[in-house]
Amino acid sequence: MSVNVAEAPAGATRPSTVQVYRAGEVERRPDLLAVEEPLEIRVVPEVAGARPRHSMAVTMRTPGHDFELAAGFLLSEGVIIGRDDLWHVAYCQETPESQRNIVEAVLAPSVPFDPERFSRNVYTTSSCGVCGKTSIELVDAVCPLRPAGTARFAREVLSRLPSVLRAAQPVFARTGGLHAAGLFDPDGRLLLLREDVGRHNAVDKVIGAMLLDGALPASDRLLLVSGRASFELVQKALMAGIPALAAVGAPSSLAVELAGDLGLTLVGFLSERRFNVYTGAERIA
Amino acid sequence: MSVNVAEAPAGATRPSTVQVYRAGEVERRPDLLAVEEPLEIRVVPEVAGARPRHSMAVTMRTPGHDFELAAGFLLSEGVIIGRDDLWHVAYCQETPESQRNIVEAVLAPSVPFDPERFSRNVYTTSSCGVCGKTSIELVDAVCPLRPAGTARFAREVLSRLPSVLRAAQPVFARTGGLHAAGLFDPDGRLLLLREDVGRHNAVDKVIGAMLLDGALPASDRLLLVSGRASFELVQKALMAGIPALAAVGAPSSLAVELAGDLGLTLVGFLSERRFNVYTGAERIA
Repeated sequence: MSVNVAEAPAGATRPSTVQVYRAGEVERRPDLLAVEEPLEIRVVPEVAGARPRHSMAVTMRTPGHDFELAAGFLLSEGVIIGRDDLWHVAYCQETPESQRNIVEAVLAPSVPFDPERFSRNVYTTSSCGVCGKTSIELVDAVCPLRPAGTARFAREVLSRLPSVLRAAQPVFARTGGLHAAGLFDPDGRLLLLREDVGRHNAVDKVIGAMLLDGALPASDRLLLVSGRASFELVQKALMAGIPALAAVGAPSSLAVELAGDLGLTLVGFLSERRFNVYTGAERIA
Repeated sequence: MSVNVAEAPAGATRPSTVQVYRAGEVERRPDLLAVEEPLEIRVVPEVAGARPRHSMAVTMRTPGHDFELAAGFLLSEGVIIGRDDLWHVAYCQETPESQRNIVEAVLAPSVPFDPERFSRNVYTTSSCGVCGKTSIELVDAVCPLRPAGTARFAREVLSRLPSVLRAAQPVFARTGGLHAAGLFDPDGRLLLLREDVGRHNAVDKVIGAMLLDGALPASDRLLLVSGRASFELVQKALMAGIPALAAVGAPSSLAVELAGDLGLTLVGFLSERRFNVYTGAERIA
């Protein structure tokens, strides 16, 4: 892979001052904050020879790796399903501000795009609304493949991944304020790490980096997240073809159901001393 | 207040089984998962004598306190700014499913509602997109009041709040999988606690409960969250008129800026031994 394993972008932290209260004392000290700034993600499809712009989302993110974030978000949402669907990704050049906070993803001409499908009520296709079951069916319908490959992850390898991830987090170490997502191979090597104030963004940056690098589907990889495992994080792993998702925290009920139905290995409460396997235990060696 | 301090809804957990890997052994054990299910929130304004339905959002939430969640969400987004703006909140009665997963909030006839303003690209009002500064200006424009009141929070009181919150978390204790938001008075009494797989939802449930109970603005209260403090959580506290937000984790740069600009006291890394005050230190006694 040509991407950096754990690059800390220049704009990811901001100096500040803070009053620290401790043991009856108050001390004014310099501090570093994790930066949170909005990013607009636009899709630019080809429609009847024209290139209209559609605003897909405004996400609060930590600046850096914005193209990866946009690419990963569009993959997660099913707007694109592979590298070839994306012509290029660039900042909007209209103003100095837009060159930092608007990313435009130009789709290949062959890629269909239905703005209605991606309006805010995307999931509300019937009068009964969406339930857990229909949420899973929607992912099932849009996800182009099922976790494949013969990769196995040894329990001894799994146990040490959280400390590897933590040791490699360049910004968290300085701010305490960021979620992390790390991509590992079956030998426990950290291939890629991304951090963000939003845990979904950290995962989008990882899978977007792989997409832009032509490294998807990632059928012999494990994705580790620093927090809990939600439905959406399982969806993102599935869309990237990753067969195993591990979380330092707990999984939700719907995360377990989606992982079970679509064949993903889901590990929770991963620590040096123990972990839980909720689905797909056949990939644990 | 008539609301329960820390009620655990019946549908908040789901039994499961899990394989626990520990010290060279694997054991199959019963387990409890925190439930995650989609909820659609609809707004029903009065428009020319009719009552059209607008889908505002589908949020992944832990079932329970759904009306509070909807009311808090609408307050956070500025759709309503007080109890009188809301006529009633109810489940959609169309189907058995909709009676669990669609909440409709009927607005008072006097309340203007512009669906365009609340489309997905609500914040993208100009070609340069939104930046941190414009995000703050948008909250400033919609927030009906500034934190007031003369409440002070003693450092000794602050220090013990996280253990009070943790001790009162009924579902977390069983699943490890939920975020919590707790509302405290200046004496450190826990008045209200809500849990959810989504941290924003937990806060929406707390401020929605207060709204439905006629208890806003909560000008002598402190809101404690179990995770980090983001821009959106500061926005929610401000919309509820709460003067102080404390987080067990770190705040983001934009959370600190918004709190500073609009006069909220923001505490981070709150623990028994120490805490940091980022803005509004005059409310710490």
